Amino acid sequence: MHTIYLVAIAAEAASGALMGMRRRMDLFGLCVVGTVTALGGGTIRDLILGHYPLGWVAHPEYLAFTVGAAIVAALAARRMHRLKTVFLWLDALGLVAFTVIGCDIAASTGAKLPVVILMGMATGVFGGLLRDILCNQVPLVLRRDLYATVSLATGILYVGLLEAGVAAPAATGVAIGAGFALRLLALRYRLALPVLEADTSSFDEEAGAGH
Amino acid sequence: MHTIYLVAIAAEAASGALMGMRRRMDLFGLCVVGTVTALGGGTIRDLILGHYPLGWVAHPEYLAFTVGAAIVAALAARRMHRLKTVFLWLDALGLVAFTVIGCDIAASTGAKLPVVILMGMATGVFGGLLRDILCNQVPLVLRRDLYATVSLATGILYVGLLEAGVAAPAATGVAIGAGFALRLLALRYRLALPVLEADTSSFDEEAGAGH
Amino acid sequence: MHTIYLVAIAAEAASGALMGMRRRMDLFGLCVVGTVTALGGGTIRDLILGHYPLGWVAHPEYLAFTVGAAIVAALAARRMHRLKTVFLWLDALGLVAFTVIGCDIAASTGAKLPVVILMGMATGVFGGLLRDILCNQVPLVLRRDLYATVSLATGILYVGLLEAGVAAPAATGVAIGAGFALRLLALRYRLALPVLEADTSSFDEEAGAGH
Repeated sequence: MHTIYLVAIAAEAASGALMGMRRRMDLFGLCVVGTVTALGGGTIRDLILGHYPLGWVAHPEYLAFTVGAAIVAALAARRMHRLKTVFLWLDALGLVAFTVIGCDIAASTGAKLPVVILMGMATGVFGGLLRDILCNQVPLVLRRDLYATVSLATGILYVGLLEAGVAAPAATGVAIGAGFALRLLALRYRLALPVLEADTSSFDEEAGAGH
Repeated sequence: MHTIYLVAIAAEAASGALMGMRRRMDLFGLCVVGTVTALGGGTIRDLILGHYPLGWVAHPEYLAFTVGAAIVAALAARRMHRLKTVFLWLDALGLVAFTVIGCDIAASTGAKLPVVILMGMATGVFGGLLRDILCNQVPLVLRRDLYATVSLATGILYVGLLEAGVAAPAATGVAIGAGFALRLLALRYRLALPVLEADTSSFDEEAGAGH
Repeated sequence: MHTIYLVAIAAEAASGALMGMRRRMDLFGLCVVGTVTALGGGTIRDLILGHYPLGWVAHPEYLAFTVGAAIVAALAARRMHRLKTVFLWLDALGLVAFTVIGCDIAASTGAKLPVVILMGMATGVFGGLLRDILCNQVPLVLRRDLYATVSLATGILYVGLLEAGVAAPAATGVAIGAGFALRLLALRYRLALPVLEADTSSFDEEAGAGH
């Protein structure tokens, strides 16, 4: 599990660094965006739960790891699109691994089941959301694709199995396997949630001023 | 008061979902933006004050409520502009109710009076600010309209009445009534704070690089 | 040191207010952006470390100070570009002073050395980062210029001197002096970290959908 976690934060750090490059950030910026992408979801989860000390505060070696991954990704960027499939697979593995880890940590604080599942999802997707805010775009996770939904399904499955009395290692394996498969299916067949269409412009322009 | 709170978070969740639709977010995105709009202000307040557990962590049923309100608002979006007036009234009620609730919670942590008032305002307006960051626009609350000012005035009035020895229920009623009326007047007569004009472009472009 | 801190938060609040003016924010918005720019870095540091109560919660008079500085900067904006050099020097002083103060506070919580240095840098630069998010632009600190790097170097020097047994007042003086000089050199000679160039567009558009 620890190895999967390291692979996951490396994949997330790389995705952050690559997006930062498109915004013409300097080396420092790439390292910040990569680190925030990799560790930001867990940080928000721990702040919300009051779970101190934060993981990377207790283990600052993770920071060296994400910075290293960001720099390697930036240097290798020209070749990364050849590795796109590998990258997407690692990212999918990271998403489900983050989700299971996030559920475990939330459960250890005594949180209720819906919060446990939500914190698993926050761990999985909020890093990418923070990355997009730093890069000044509407977060991709809010717009399209079965990404957060995969995290949600993984968390529900994992917590459900534990509640049903399944042993933790088995529940972890099943949830990660099923979530990973679902994510690959979503990528392969371009599955997505519906986007509701509505002409809300007239409403929004006037009413929005209320905020 | 609890009923007013539920109405307020429903109105805020709806406003978040409607703005998310204009950004072409999918269903998941609408639920996230709606929930962040409704509960984000209180979350920031509790993080700043170290007030654990957070309200929605202890009562996850609020999450179901905001998600439900976001989905209903999205489905009813075509009809929402007919309900614009109702919506703005609910939002105004929510703003002042959030403010009073925020002041109470801050006071319960022993915070000083200026912090109590500020945390009331944060509870009232930071949800909308987070919504605008997620939707990638300069927060409306920073740009125009007597919105934050209404929250500030409500908080000052509420805390002032309590300090003057007025009983809590009376202070709550007076503050909410006066704040609500002020907000409706601001909407009716388009009251706004001044926007200072200045040609700071030459300064900003050069000096801004310093950050 | 306390005087330097007050100068620093005033300079940061002014920089926030000036950027808010360019976004046509109203007076309330300028005060919020100014205050967040001045106190946001320390707030994020304290949230991450679980260091309660936050500085400005315990000392709300700082809020009056930043609001005052924001208003003065807004009123004086037409003349500020004549004071550009003074402003940049104050900002440079603030950057290094924030860094040293941030290191001290992090060390007082028992954080490990890399975290101490990182929290010094967070105190120095995250206020400006939050300012840019509120103003809806890719944070300048991530894009160019030796700014965060100066903060990092100052923190490393300061912590290194303390570890080497140098007395705190001497370490503070040397670190602030050296950091300040480095920042002025960076401004004078337009020193900057490299921006890596890469055509990642094709990769990003497709793979980015995965987030």
